[in-house]
Amino acid sequence: MTGPSGDLAGERADAVRNRARLLEAAAWLVAERGAEHVTMHEVARVAGVGKGTLFRRFGDRNGLLLALLDDVEAEFHEAYTFGPPPLGPGAPASERLIAFGQALIERVADSTDLGPALGRQVPTDRRQTSYYGRAFRAHVISLLREAGVVGDHTMLAHALLAFVDLETLDHLRTDDQVTTARLQAAWADLVRRVTGTDER
Amino acid sequence: MTGPSGDLAGERADAVRNRARLLEAAAWLVAERGAEHVTMHEVARVAGVGKGTLFRRFGDRNGLLLALLDDVEAEFHEAYTFGPPPLGPGAPASERLIAFGQALIERVADSTDLGPALGRQVPTDRRQTSYYGRAFRAHVISLLREAGVVGDHTMLAHALLAFVDLETLDHLRTDDQVTTARLQAAWADLVRRVTGTDER
Repeated sequence: MTGPSGDLAGERADAVRNRARLLEAAAWLVAERGAEHVTMHEVARVAGVGKGTLFRRFGDRNGLLLALLDDVEAEFHEAYTFGPPPLGPGAPASERLIAFGQALIERVADSTDLGPALGRQVPTDRRQTSYYGRAFRAHVISLLREAGVVGDHTMLAHALLAFVDLETLDHLRTDDQVTTARLQAAWADLVRRVTGTDER
Repeated sequence: MTGPSGDLAGERADAVRNRARLLEAAAWLVAERGAEHVTMHEVARVAGVGKGTLFRRFGDRNGLLLALLDDVEAEFHEAYTFGPPPLGPGAPASERLIAFGQALIERVADSTDLGPALGRQVPTDRRQTSYYGRAFRAHVISLLREAGVVGDHTMLAHALLAFVDLETLDHLRTDDQVTTARLQAAWADLVRRVTGTDER
């Protein structure tokens, strides 16, 4: 009786191992060569896994990058959901919102952070299908509600997040040479205005 | 004495005519076939102008689309700079700002408006090099100043404009099915919060 179910469990364990090995290989390639050089061929080669398995598992390169992005973002998600304040619970909602955007701005400035590097590769899919895009929005909506903001929380969350969007920040940093400190100060000011906690 | 200078003037007049004819042909193609189908070959053919002239004049397809975009946007620029209030001068700055974003939102919803259709074709260059992108920003900065907002006007302008950016609005309208009315109400709310004119 242990035979077939044991095989099945073994197969499942193999699949989990394969998945982990493929994502690890992809992460290594992103860090080592840059996300734009990551190809399905190279990932399969580095992981020592058949290309067929790679395609079956992730569909295509975008699918692989999105899976890796969600993996990479899990740590940040943990930090703003359960970590120490002001990013995590324990600080006033408006202060948490300020810390959240400032952390995003800092991450975009950090060239070793795999999150932004991957996000740049999937500009459309990141918005539409990635888990973490939706998680960011849900977090901002819940903080706006907690801060007692009366209004269309979903739209206000979109408006706030549009400013700290990867493409917006890249544009401001690269073309307009705006510093991290100035972006973070502007974010704090924006949050205070939107939540009505600015000291005007 | 009129000979050479007359020839020069004639050449210049020819160049101006050619430019107008090329932009007209491109505009016709965008309206008729959609911006994504506009090729340098087709534009030269429709305008009855050599392909060499087209490339010399605009550099490449992106250059042509950006030139056309600036042409198309001139009318809107006129409206928010010199037109009737609340979009044009004569209304309070915060009301003008509300009208400005609401007009942008309406334009994105209008499938016959060539501005957004062209803008979608040049997502990066639109931000970096188009005249109208800079003009939008300058307009918002000057209204924030006029509204008496104390803060980093440039960054606040970027933050506001990020919400009514073409890609943000397209995403919200298409993937999240957000209506024009809801987007316009959210914009008005955002402006009132940022300018401190909301009736909280």
